[in-house]
Amino acid sequence: MRMAELSSVAGVPVATIKYYLREGLLQAGVASSPNQASYDDEHVRRLRLIRALLDVGGLSILSAREVIDSIYSDSSLAETFAVAQNTVSETLDVEQIDPEALQRIDALVSDWKYLPANPGRLAAGRVLSTFDAVGQRDDRGWFGRYKTAALVAAEADLDEIETRQSRESQAETVVVGTVLGDALFAALRRIAQEHVTQQRYSPEGTA
Amino acid sequence: MRMAELSSVAGVPVATIKYYLREGLLQAGVASSPNQASYDDEHVRRLRLIRALLDVGGLSILSAREVIDSIYSDSSLAETFAVAQNTVSETLDVEQIDPEALQRIDALVSDWKYLPANPGRLAAGRVLSTFDAVGQRDDRGWFGRYKTAALVAAEADLDEIETRQSRESQAETVVVGTVLGDALFAALRRIAQEHVTQQRYSPEGTA
Repeated sequence: MRMAELSSVAGVPVATIKYYLREGLLQAGVASSPNQASYDDEHVRRLRLIRALLDVGGLSILSAREVIDSIYSDSSLAETFAVAQNTVSETLDVEQIDPEALQRIDALVSDWKYLPANPGRLAAGRVLSTFDAVGQRDDRGWFGRYKTAALVAAEADLDEIETRQSRESQAETVVVGTVLGDALFAALRRIAQEHVTQQRYSPEGTA
Repeated sequence: MRMAELSSVAGVPVATIKYYLREGLLQAGVASSPNQASYDDEHVRRLRLIRALLDVGGLSILSAREVIDSIYSDSSLAETFAVAQNTVSETLDVEQIDPEALQRIDALVSDWKYLPANPGRLAAGRVLSTFDAVGQRDDRGWFGRYKTAALVAAEADLDEIETRQSRESQAETVVVGTVLGDALFAALRRIAQEHVTQQRYSPEGTA
C-alpha cells in the first residue's frame, strides 16, 4: 500500500509517519518508483507499537527507538529486559542514593538474583529514603508485601513471554509488558484500594 | 526558628521556601515581628513531604497542593484516596476509552466494589485496548495475576494505614503510599523480572 493508505489504515497522519521514518522509528517502505514506496501490514503493526509506546507508555522518541531496536536485534531476553527497564526508569546515580536504603533493599530481596546496576534497585532505594524523610514507617511488613506482589507480576510476565513463538515476538512482549505493565498494575491497584476501603469502612449496602 | 534556619535544617533554599509559601503549599509561620516569622518542626516536616511529592512523586505544584489540602481537611479516608488517586492518574475521558475494554476490566474485577469513575478503571481500560492494538494476548491469565498482585498491595496499604494513630497521619500515609507506592512496586518488579529471568534462563553459577 502507499503512504496515504498506510495513514488511513493505521490512523496516523502522513506527516507523523514521515517524522517516524526520519527518526528511524518506522522501517522504510520498499521503493516502487524513485518517488514512491510501498508499505505492508508490518508497517501498520509497527505504527501501532510506536503509538502505544509514545502515547500510553509516555516514552520519548529516542527511548522508543531504543526499545524497538532491541526487539529487532539478536539480544537475549535478559538484554531486552535491561534495555526496556532502563528506558522506563528515571536515570539515577548510585552516588545520590542513601547507601543505608540500598542495603535495606538488598536485605529485603536477598533471596533474589540481580545485578547491582538494576534500575529498580536504585529506584527502590530512593523510594525507601523518601519514606524515611517524610516519617513513614513499615509497621506491618508493607514493603515485604510489595515484594510479594512484584514477584507475582514478574512470574506472570515471564510465563506470558514463554507462550510467544519467536524470539522477536518474545522480545516484543518484554517491551510492551515492561512499558505498559507499570500502568496496568497502578490502575488495578487504584481499583483495589477503593474496593478494600469500601469493604473495611462502608457498611454493607451503603456503598 | 527563622527562615534561614528552616532552610538549613530542611535542606531547601530560602527562595524555594518563599515560593512554597506563596503557592500555599507550606503553612505560614507565626509572625514574631512585622517583617519576621517563626517556624517550627511542623514546617520542616511539611517541607520534606512537599519535596517527596514533587521530586520523587513527580507531582506538579498544583497537584501537590491538592493532596496536601486533603490531608489537613476533614475528608474521609475514601475521599483522601480519591484525591490522591486522581492526582497521580492521567485525566482520561470515558468517551475515549473503548467500551469493550472497560467491560473486560469490569469482568476481570467483578468481585470488587468500586465506582465507575475510579481513575484506575479508565486507565486499565486504556492499557487493555493498547495491548489489543499491538496484538498482545493474555494467554496464561496475565491480567488476572496482575489483579492478584494489586490486591496484595492494596491490602498492605490499608493494613499499614490502620496502624497510624490520628486521622491526619492516616491521610498522610494514604497520600504518600498512593504517590510513592507505584514507584516502589515498579522498582521491585524490575528486580523481580531480572531475578526470574536469571532463574529460568541462566544455568546455576554463570549469572
